[in-house]
Amino acid sequence: MPDDPIAVLEAELAAPPFHRWLRPSLESADLASETVTVRIPARPELARIPGEPGFHGAVVAGAVDIAAHAAIVLRTGGPTPTVDLRVDYLRASTGADLLARARIVRAGRSLGTVRVDVSEPGGREIAAGMATFYLRRD
Amino acid sequence: MPDDPIAVLEAELAAPPFHRWLRPSLESADLASETVTVRIPARPELARIPGEPGFHGAVVAGAVDIAAHAAIVLRTGGPTPTVDLRVDYLRASTGADLLARARIVRAGRSLGTVRVDVSEPGGREIAAGMATFYLRRD
Amino acid sequence: MPDDPIAVLEAELAAPPFHRWLRPSLESADLASETVTVRIPARPELARIPGEPGFHGAVVAGAVDIAAHAAIVLRTGGPTPTVDLRVDYLRASTGADLLARARIVRAGRSLGTVRVDVSEPGGREIAAGMATFYLRRD
Amino acid sequence: MPDDPIAVLEAELAAPPFHRWLRPSLESADLASETVTVRIPARPELARIPGEPGFHGAVVAGAVDIAAHAAIVLRTGGPTPTVDLRVDYLRASTGADLLARARIVRAGRSLGTVRVDVSEPGGREIAAGMATFYLRRD
Repeated sequence: MPDDPIAVLEAELAAPPFHRWLRPSLESADLASETVTVRIPARPELARIPGEPGFHGAVVAGAVDIAAHAAIVLRTGGPTPTVDLRVDYLRASTGADLLARARIVRAGRSLGTVRVDVSEPGGREIAAGMATFYLRRD
Repeated sequence: MPDDPIAVLEAELAAPPFHRWLRPSLESADLASETVTVRIPARPELARIPGEPGFHGAVVAGAVDIAAHAAIVLRTGGPTPTVDLRVDYLRASTGADLLARARIVRAGRSLGTVRVDVSEPGGREIAAGMATFYLRRD
Repeated sequence: MPDDPIAVLEAELAAPPFHRWLRPSLESADLASETVTVRIPARPELARIPGEPGFHGAVVAGAVDIAAHAAIVLRTGGPTPTVDLRVDYLRASTGADLLARARIVRAGRSLGTVRVDVSEPGGREIAAGMATFYLRRD
Repeated sequence: MPDDPIAVLEAELAAPPFHRWLRPSLESADLASETVTVRIPARPELARIPGEPGFHGAVVAGAVDIAAHAAIVLRTGGPTPTVDLRVDYLRASTGADLLARARIVRAGRSLGTVRVDVSEPGGREIAAGMATFYLRRD
């Protein structure tokens, strides 16, 4: 685990050019359980249907990837490539922010697997995801 | 199938606010085989690593979702919700555009399933995806 | 929900010819939370490596499918087709029985999605799964 | 690649206790394209519905796992653990044998990913799968 894993994680969340547009922020992190929650702020330009609130499915998939990767960074201290990703869309989002809560469920020598639950702040479940990452360069 | 399915598809690709930023365009469409290829133009702000070419994994997942949905729109004539999505990341992208080629492999009364291959124009395979959509509102 | 959903579920678990060989049994069911746990008894002929305890990965995938379907049967009262399935293998099984705990996380008009955790009786996590089913014939 | 990869593959397909019951056999193998086709013979005890032909979904998932692993064995010469697995069920099987055709789509230093198409001998597509394996012990 890196020296100050929270600071490392916040720096990693801020660095990618794509994130400067999407603006994910660290909502909470628990080192003991290797659990991280990332918030994606709702904005009209992230919508699927013009004039309707709610997130495009691609953004929800991005929330799964980013939150899962954040949980991995908490352990490894730096970025690693995604191996694969699954997202199950449970309910349409309603215009509130997304909270993507990620927890490592397996970490071996080369791979880490992360479960992600995406919900709105009031508890509405939006999506369930699983993602696998390299823990080091392949 | 809608009256002019290509025009409908191009309108649907242009409509979502999220697409105005991502700028997916229709590269080709084959009505007989229900195959659609969507291009995502490379831009520095879609990258994962600052100063390095290549797409963030979340954008690759978005390319799978958008191309798969486009193949569904070719059949249904309008937007439908994503049920689930899987992306296997095969190789890092190198800074070229992404071409996401989607083909419907199952279409029943309520669901359609689409296989997607994401590659660069020179043929480098970037990702393999599968996505399932409602063919009508649930 | 059927009249006596537990009896219906036990009959459905006993009926498939494939189950007569695999012998899944109902460990517990909670109607309020739509959660079902199915036990797969360990037997040497379910192994991957000759002479070593533990389950073949195909049997673990089967446990995910069967437990997820059982949760759906609790709601619908009868068998429905699987749409898709994902299994993440977390740890090798050690020769104990498998307990596959399934909970419905989405149920619309046409589809149900189920999260499954496969573990050993002592709590060792073996696999995590997600499966989607039709709630009626397509 | 092992010395006589086909003989190694046939021995590996015969070895697992679970396979003695399921009886997968090598239908064809192409070393250049790293493609393997495995046949699962239809039998009444593999069915889902008593008295109806066709395979239980868990057996179809097993066909994906076994064929994908066979493609990996062609490269590595020995068994390796499954990381994860996805199956999309396209059509009900009708009582014919299953042919699961597997092709490696990514092979790095630590991981291999395999695409699998499951069909009947007449060409009917039954399922599409993707599976990822370690190429060496984690």
